[in-house]
Amino acid sequence: MNRTIDWDGDAIAIIDQTLLPREEKVIRLTDVAALCEAIESLRVRGAPALGVAGALGVALAVRYAGDVPAAADEAALRLAATRPTAINLRWGIEQARAAAAEGPDAVLDVALGLIEADVRTNRAIAERGARWLATQTSPGRPRLRVLTHCNTGALACVEVGTALGVISAAYEKGLVEEVLATETRPLLQGSRLTAWELQRSGIPFRVVVDGAAPSLIARGAVDVVIVGADRIAANHDVANKVGTYALALAAARARIPFAVAAPESTRDLATATGADVPIEERREDEVLRFAGERVAPAGARALNPAFDITPAELVTAIITEARLIEPLTERIQRS
Amino acid sequence: MNRTIDWDGDAIAIIDQTLLPREEKVIRLTDVAALCEAIESLRVRGAPALGVAGALGVALAVRYAGDVPAAADEAALRLAATRPTAINLRWGIEQARAAAAEGPDAVLDVALGLIEADVRTNRAIAERGARWLATQTSPGRPRLRVLTHCNTGALACVEVGTALGVISAAYEKGLVEEVLATETRPLLQGSRLTAWELQRSGIPFRVVVDGAAPSLIARGAVDVVIVGADRIAANHDVANKVGTYALALAAARARIPFAVAAPESTRDLATATGADVPIEERREDEVLRFAGERVAPAGARALNPAFDITPAELVTAIITEARLIEPLTERIQRS
Repeated sequence: MNRTIDWDGDAIAIIDQTLLPREEKVIRLTDVAALCEAIESLRVRGAPALGVAGALGVALAVRYAGDVPAAADEAALRLAATRPTAINLRWGIEQARAAAAEGPDAVLDVALGLIEADVRTNRAIAERGARWLATQTSPGRPRLRVLTHCNTGALACVEVGTALGVISAAYEKGLVEEVLATETRPLLQGSRLTAWELQRSGIPFRVVVDGAAPSLIARGAVDVVIVGADRIAANHDVANKVGTYALALAAARARIPFAVAAPESTRDLATATGADVPIEERREDEVLRFAGERVAPAGARALNPAFDITPAELVTAIITEARLIEPLTERIQRS
Repeated sequence: MNRTIDWDGDAIAIIDQTLLPREEKVIRLTDVAALCEAIESLRVRGAPALGVAGALGVALAVRYAGDVPAAADEAALRLAATRPTAINLRWGIEQARAAAAEGPDAVLDVALGLIEADVRTNRAIAERGARWLATQTSPGRPRLRVLTHCNTGALACVEVGTALGVISAAYEKGLVEEVLATETRPLLQGSRLTAWELQRSGIPFRVVVDGAAPSLIARGAVDVVIVGADRIAANHDVANKVGTYALALAAARARIPFAVAAPESTRDLATATGADVPIEERREDEVLRFAGERVAPAGARALNPAFDITPAELVTAIITEARLIEPLTERIQRS
């Protein structure tokens, strides 16, 4: 598989995720406008990948600019406006912009560094997460039935993935019996992207509609829920793909663990609680159409929040490259 | 609008709901095999409509039969096997079969009686439900934002509807500000059918994906949740369209009422608790394809339970034609 996002020497190269699972096609983005369009239409998505995209976007903007800091500032504003909830996007943009005074090459070096750092970070998350999943097994349940939401695999990052990276690493260690992947309406990142990655990895899985997951948890069909995050507030409230909150509610009631895997760059100490996270509202058409075809009657309206907030008290564990945070106990185990 | 299901003198006439919202077409079903196919493929669906369908199916089977009781028994077996969760189907079948010894006309009379009774029943549910909704208003919130799931309107019954009938009656009394209708994957009864009914009634509404509803409840965007039921166990656990349970969890946490509107025929005193209700597993293709087009990669599998169980302790009110049941307090107010 190609890297989800990379620099090809002159342009940003991404796998166009709107074409998956039908076609794995790499497209080149040669200016900030093309990158903004790609981010807005989710050709590239996933919090860690957006961090890299933000940095590469600034690098692209300043490459032949006369006034590098001014070009960086302008690109930063345009890029940050594309997705308001994902904090990694802002983080990546700021990393690159901070080098603008040193010139285009310095900015590009920062962006390229973030690409490599993302891979290292995800490997560390995967390893820590697999160790944590091992603690959730028991003699009677040596292999876990893991439920995940949206796509948090290699396609959400440069490589490896966050929650799906954890699942893959745990599967390699013989800790996973089956993955239940929610389809993740409206854009079906679960059935289109997660299913595609799981199938390539040979991990047994089944797709379920989002509404079925809470009752499968209640019926004892799931041992652990693990998801990614788009922003983690200072109090450990988690903003993630809409539909996550219901999984956390069901997990808490069924007394199974609900874990979040995300890089440290997803933590936003400047945002006190989940109530302070801006929730992106996306186009009504995403709901009213399915796979391009209109399903609701003409004239129908929709409400389409892209994210929801899971309160920290429903989160068993937050797994980052640096630590395991257990919000319920506020116990932080540093590595 | 035509009746959802009716007897045209020689055959069963139904609106083919798989064609909505594109086309409102009445089709004629002239034998039990055609009716079974129509039930299995959800051309006719909804617990109360299935009760009528079951009775009409038995009437159709015995119409020109030599041995009426034997023909009734055979039809009953075939019809009951089509949808295992919906108790109304069995109830309708049994009502008709009990008259078999008296001949075909007696069976048909029973079935025709159920059609008229369904309309009366739903009017009574709508009136009682609207009175109950009025008790949920306050000076600061005279008109409610009501969230509903799946389709429980006229299309789920002969006319009027259960939960959507309550909403319509309450809207007529000025008690409803807006309806949020979940799209209800995998078969989109919300965005296809409920939206179609709401639009025809002129009631303001927006469609939301199933995964968004719990967080909208948490964010204070909903005042009350009201749904239908496919079976209510003796302890008041409620089997309903998959996705219902998450709404009940979110409503309980947000401390807003979660109500169920259903005829008495949905109550199944022979089933002790929700754990005893058989949950229909439907075809994987419903999840993996949309409008004939595959959304998941080839080879992907799915798990497709059609219903879930909401424990009685999460149910604020059950509204039937005969009473208001409040499971939390076990207080039953007879009319």
